[in-house]
Amino acid sequence: MIPSSIENSEIYPIANPGSIAFFGASNNLAAMGTTVLGCICAMGYAGKIYPVHPKDREIKGFQAFQRVSDLPEIPDLAYIVLPTPVVVETLEACGQLGIRHAVIVSAGFNEVGGQGKQLQSELTAVAEKYGIRFLGPNCIGVINTHLNLNATFLPYEAGRGYIGMASQSGSFITQMSPHMSRLGMGFSTGFSIGNEANVDIVDCMAYLGACPNTRVIALYIESIRRGRAFIDTARAIVPKKPIVAFYVGGSDEGRRAGFSHTGALAGPDPLYNGVFRQSGVIRASSIEELFDFCYVLGASPPIQGNRVIVQTHSGGPGAAAADACGRNGLHLPALTAATLERLKPHVPHTASVANPVDLTFTKTPLDFFQTIPQILTADENADALLIYFLATSRMIQVVLEALGVSDDMSGDKAEEIIIQQADAIAALGEQIKKPIVGFSFLARKESSLIRALQDRGIPVLPSPERGARALAALVKYKNLREKLTQG
Amino acid sequence: MIPSSIENSEIYPIANPGSIAFFGASNNLAAMGTTVLGCICAMGYAGKIYPVHPKDREIKGFQAFQRVSDLPEIPDLAYIVLPTPVVVETLEACGQLGIRHAVIVSAGFNEVGGQGKQLQSELTAVAEKYGIRFLGPNCIGVINTHLNLNATFLPYEAGRGYIGMASQSGSFITQMSPHMSRLGMGFSTGFSIGNEANVDIVDCMAYLGACPNTRVIALYIESIRRGRAFIDTARAIVPKKPIVAFYVGGSDEGRRAGFSHTGALAGPDPLYNGVFRQSGVIRASSIEELFDFCYVLGASPPIQGNRVIVQTHSGGPGAAAADACGRNGLHLPALTAATLERLKPHVPHTASVANPVDLTFTKTPLDFFQTIPQILTADENADALLIYFLATSRMIQVVLEALGVSDDMSGDKAEEIIIQQADAIAALGEQIKKPIVGFSFLARKESSLIRALQDRGIPVLPSPERGARALAALVKYKNLREKLTQG
Repeated sequence: MIPSSIENSEIYPIANPGSIAFFGASNNLAAMGTTVLGCICAMGYAGKIYPVHPKDREIKGFQAFQRVSDLPEIPDLAYIVLPTPVVVETLEACGQLGIRHAVIVSAGFNEVGGQGKQLQSELTAVAEKYGIRFLGPNCIGVINTHLNLNATFLPYEAGRGYIGMASQSGSFITQMSPHMSRLGMGFSTGFSIGNEANVDIVDCMAYLGACPNTRVIALYIESIRRGRAFIDTARAIVPKKPIVAFYVGGSDEGRRAGFSHTGALAGPDPLYNGVFRQSGVIRASSIEELFDFCYVLGASPPIQGNRVIVQTHSGGPGAAAADACGRNGLHLPALTAATLERLKPHVPHTASVANPVDLTFTKTPLDFFQTIPQILTADENADALLIYFLATSRMIQVVLEALGVSDDMSGDKAEEIIIQQADAIAALGEQIKKPIVGFSFLARKESSLIRALQDRGIPVLPSPERGARALAALVKYKNLREKLTQG
Repeated sequence: MIPSSIENSEIYPIANPGSIAFFGASNNLAAMGTTVLGCICAMGYAGKIYPVHPKDREIKGFQAFQRVSDLPEIPDLAYIVLPTPVVVETLEACGQLGIRHAVIVSAGFNEVGGQGKQLQSELTAVAEKYGIRFLGPNCIGVINTHLNLNATFLPYEAGRGYIGMASQSGSFITQMSPHMSRLGMGFSTGFSIGNEANVDIVDCMAYLGACPNTRVIALYIESIRRGRAFIDTARAIVPKKPIVAFYVGGSDEGRRAGFSHTGALAGPDPLYNGVFRQSGVIRASSIEELFDFCYVLGASPPIQGNRVIVQTHSGGPGAAAADACGRNGLHLPALTAATLERLKPHVPHTASVANPVDLTFTKTPLDFFQTIPQILTADENADALLIYFLATSRMIQVVLEALGVSDDMSGDKAEEIIIQQADAIAALGEQIKKPIVGFSFLARKESSLIRALQDRGIPVLPSPERGARALAALVKYKNLREKLTQG
């Protein structure tokens, strides 16, 4: 049920259109369709765009066509952002021309009940008649960063990434890019699936399972309609890549909210926990955790066990990391005698070489990023390293100036040192094939060290607890994958 | 045990020195004492500083003195950042001159065991002989933002705030200012208490209880030595201001880490939970949560119950907020008939007026910030409002341009609208005396709306879950305070 290659996916043209017939954009700047077309242009999509409009002849520089039947070719995809009453006839016209894929952003269907339900039935009947696969209605569209395609109504502000997402809320496709960019992560592809009248979360998950740009799959779920297909599809994917789900329907409050949002009927936590367990899907407890888990799962090599070494030069953050590890099922082994022997020449007398390894400071700054993590990750009991980062460019600069480097040189020199440090950790990560997860109270935009680390594939989270929980997700994935491949 | 006024606190001069004798700064820029003195100068402390140094005659522009006995007056405070072996004799000399307060940053005492323990005993004996109260040793010093005093070795980057903190880790006093500044909060006073040889966490808590700049007290705890005094002092404070504690010694891993950090022996979770319950102290489960709770507790009027209305224009974030409320003991009441009637003219037909109130959009943008929250918070079943913020300056600008406002005007006009919106919510908050807590995936530095709200006293957290948990902390504080004042 996962396509053998992504091109064979039935929904491939929805995420990878070479050409789009666009319905709903005009020279009225306040129309939602105009905003979506603006977003598509802003990100630099290189495919062909054919606006269809009864009156306007040119829209945002594109030649517009009065009727679908006027189009010079059969586009891969119809993008429909029209008032509810004309959606069915528009899909019909697309089908007649031979268009076989659509995204229907328009709302006013099942989610409003009554007449809307009738309209949605008509929509699915038209799709069936022509063999059309469509996303929506009542969705916010699709993002494929690797195609520079952002067909939503908000700008996409993060970079190209490895997280493939299918979401029962459009907000989590369109509104999370500032959050993602703060950790240096991004979407590969994001689907807002809306009412799932035709393409559903299972279809999107299968597509993302085959997508070569997607290393990890994120799901936002208010309810699962095809339970059996969900489980089977997930089980086929999980041996190859992890799936993380954030499910909000399990509490009374979440269930009621989901019902008024998409009209879907959710089930209690134990039921969904059972589905996730059978599926091999990791459950996240918040939207923040969903992205944290995906971020670290996509960045890290497989973990072999739950034994973590914590490296720090500050006692409190080290103790908080140790405590968070303990509370999340991770174990902090004592260092072996061999490791202690190898560490000795590199640590000051004030250091504690228990685990956490609290260096207090390091004689040579690069030691913290090279020699010491090298020794610690080589320990036979270490499955992963959780490491605290503090140093800022400004702090290094002050030390350099104290050592006699002139004011006008120290800034550049500090940046140079930071790149060396980040390179050292990244090279170690490549070499040892054990996860290295960082945490820091400094943000990417405040610290060139954090940015350099993240850009080199070392995930750095904003607190010890979030780092520890993400490491625990790696262990969870190891166990789920093993169960599925052995079972 | 709480001083009747802050000036009567025995440790008042430690946080409010008019003059400081400084030991350990020199013209050697790499010395830690020099860095601390640099931080004191950088923040603009206006009191007198007397560096004491055997050779240097001028340090950072201050006249330096060879011996303590050479000082022209008896300073309020001795600040000691010297090598371990000379600390005891330095405190003795200070005592002889008549100095009665000290901060001892130097390490190498109880925390290293052996000879260090002996040295710490000598230190406390000298203090007893002269009636000296001192913070430390093995601490990172004190910050009093309202005095522009940052006597640590890292710059303080947040603003003046209302969080008073006493911490058994110096890192959480010195390294959290970027984190705090990201939410627009800051310390009133922060104490790094180190080995607690003389002044301990109970003394600092009592001081903060009396401090008029402190609205909420944050504690980082690896162990409590004076259990009875802790409970009694906390119980005297909690009716007046909330106390939040982050305790890491409860897990095996946290306990071991704390032991190697400060040599303190922690107790299991149930024991400490009992202490916190008796004390009326709210326990935070992470350092992030400690600051979140303090942020919202300090910003909000007292909550009257656990009934929350969620206001959003995006379904997913609304559902996530509802779910998080449910999981944290908060209740989402249905709107009364009167509220529904009052809402009707202001909401579009696509809106859901269940709770969450999902507006999808608002006809008049200011409605989201004024009329609608006014109606919702006036509902007789509403104890608090949890509200989602999305709009960016850029989005408002696009709408304005669509409405015909010229490009060169739209930026300023958008900022003007944002200020109006933030003013409207802040005015409502003042008027209704019910907590209004915001959440947004946009950060303060990315969005002038978020900054404007936070600067007007409306707390905005970075996710629905963190917003919900902070609201639950308000309810917890209400219950704890009632129990203490009734008992």
